[in-house]
Amino acid sequence: MADDPTAGGDGAMPPLALGGFGSFYAGGRQIAVAGRPVTEIRFTADTPPVPFDPNGTYRVEQAYVQYFVPATRRPGWPPVLLLHGGGMTGAMWETTPDGRPGWLHGLLARGLAVYAMDQAERGRAGFNATPEPWPGHPLTRTGEEAWTLFRFGPAGSFADRAAFPGCRFPVAAFDRFMAQFVPRWTGTAAMQTAALRAVLAEVGQRDAPPLLICHSQGGEAAFAALAAAPSALAGLVALEPSGFPADPFPVALPRDFPALIVSGDRLDMDDLWRALDGRMDSAAVLLAASGAQAERLKLPRAGLPGATHMMMMDACSDAALDRVMDRLGGVFG
Amino acid sequence: MADDPTAGGDGAMPPLALGGFGSFYAGGRQIAVAGRPVTEIRFTADTPPVPFDPNGTYRVEQAYVQYFVPATRRPGWPPVLLLHGGGMTGAMWETTPDGRPGWLHGLLARGLAVYAMDQAERGRAGFNATPEPWPGHPLTRTGEEAWTLFRFGPAGSFADRAAFPGCRFPVAAFDRFMAQFVPRWTGTAAMQTAALRAVLAEVGQRDAPPLLICHSQGGEAAFAALAAAPSALAGLVALEPSGFPADPFPVALPRDFPALIVSGDRLDMDDLWRALDGRMDSAAVLLAASGAQAERLKLPRAGLPGATHMMMMDACSDAALDRVMDRLGGVFG
Repeated sequence: MADDPTAGGDGAMPPLALGGFGSFYAGGRQIAVAGRPVTEIRFTADTPPVPFDPNGTYRVEQAYVQYFVPATRRPGWPPVLLLHGGGMTGAMWETTPDGRPGWLHGLLARGLAVYAMDQAERGRAGFNATPEPWPGHPLTRTGEEAWTLFRFGPAGSFADRAAFPGCRFPVAAFDRFMAQFVPRWTGTAAMQTAALRAVLAEVGQRDAPPLLICHSQGGEAAFAALAAAPSALAGLVALEPSGFPADPFPVALPRDFPALIVSGDRLDMDDLWRALDGRMDSAAVLLAASGAQAERLKLPRAGLPGATHMMMMDACSDAALDRVMDRLGGVFG
Repeated sequence: MADDPTAGGDGAMPPLALGGFGSFYAGGRQIAVAGRPVTEIRFTADTPPVPFDPNGTYRVEQAYVQYFVPATRRPGWPPVLLLHGGGMTGAMWETTPDGRPGWLHGLLARGLAVYAMDQAERGRAGFNATPEPWPGHPLTRTGEEAWTLFRFGPAGSFADRAAFPGCRFPVAAFDRFMAQFVPRWTGTAAMQTAALRAVLAEVGQRDAPPLLICHSQGGEAAFAALAAAPSALAGLVALEPSGFPADPFPVALPRDFPALIVSGDRLDMDDLWRALDGRMDSAAVLLAASGAQAERLKLPRAGLPGATHMMMMDACSDAALDRVMDRLGGVFG
């Protein structure tokens, strides 16, 4: 399948003894649709036309969670909840675009139970196809935008895939990476926060309050959920969040509550990233002022220059996870 | 979470030793969008407005595949590829709505490698949010329609969830089941067949041509893919398919090629199911005429009365899988 740009890697994944795995849905609500016309559709070309009545009961805005529990868990550590960023799904943690084990594997190999979610509106969570209750339209990111926004290369360098010198993203697999992109809405933060809070509660009940690792747009719901119910989390690792804590942060956090804000290289590349860099600084200050053990982890200063917005997929992804684990070791170790 | 209708089960899943697991995308194509206006959006409430340029490169119509390979595989058996039906994703095979292990677990426990796909346009495969290249609109099934179409209860019995006597679907968990529904288009069969063919080729390259287990609308792409390249499959199990083989079937099948058409109870409940029952009979005849070992497996006659369209979730789901395995044992055992 060498000519198929989505065909990936060597498939060589490490063996793993699981105590269990499965999936569940959490959050959402039921809605009733009424007064819409009945149409006629064919579900497949082989079945007769049937009336399609859109009126009735729908379940919407739930999140999907797939969980993996190692047979032997690392003592003292909470489970980990993985929350993807905008336009992505939980698949982003599984296998890197060039076929290496993802952070899902890395966390399991380190003895941690992992809950990987598809945020409401994305992936297996499903989106709301009833007469639009969400503002705006679904958007999908172009390859061009991702290439620059994720700091793989300068604007205009997408066509020939000319990355920044030292960029650690596996750019030869960029076209496989694009296959992971899914549409996202942009006005659904409150709904997504509610779904995340339901997931946190469910993981807490099934297991224990988790360490939440969120990425990019996932930060928006993550900080909101933390503010709403700090005891539902054991800690927060925000990977280049694009949503931030309220100022002032409205609740006190436990003194040993770890809050780590992780970032890659080249944050000075443009105004957007310079602004986000400043917001990440402010977020660490705000959370520390609320009592948390809050700090920034700048991967280039931790020996990983060239790390990108997708540090969980970079060539140095496993080393980046080591750096995160090292910082948390003082709390959970 | 007893008041959360999506909170499921006891989470007690059997231990499992995996030789590896991961995910990949297969199929699809790149498209270029041009000439559309640039708008301004905020990716989150906390980030400044940025131009959103929809023009550029997108990858669309790929399928998502998650795979699990047991540490010890059952000799002689091919891997299994699971293809969900309409309005569903690969999540349907994982955990039943009432929290029991799904067929994914059941197949792994029986020593088979499992590849569970999200068909193009569904779940983690993503849908196409660019200016509509697919005919029609996405549709989501209502609870009312599923209740009757899947033969859980007669029309009009949804409101009080009054199931048919003897119905084996876990109807107390119906509202959790609804959380699994995702939108689907109805005119995308050719695109989905192409994605399935790419998945079959990729599984064949990574492992071996798989036994394809498809459900309901998944039958449409499954029979088309079989007709296009019989050697890409080791066998076909069609669970109440709603797509059928072409008549006459255009290719010869190997004499030992197993083709099993599995159905539940109450196929006489209405005209639609009586028609589909007849099509399932004809499909077995057509495939047998093409050389396959084709037969119907009627679960009520195999000791499982009350089985429904969702036989992989029914209370007798594990026994249903046993019946399927027994029939195939003569070929692969």
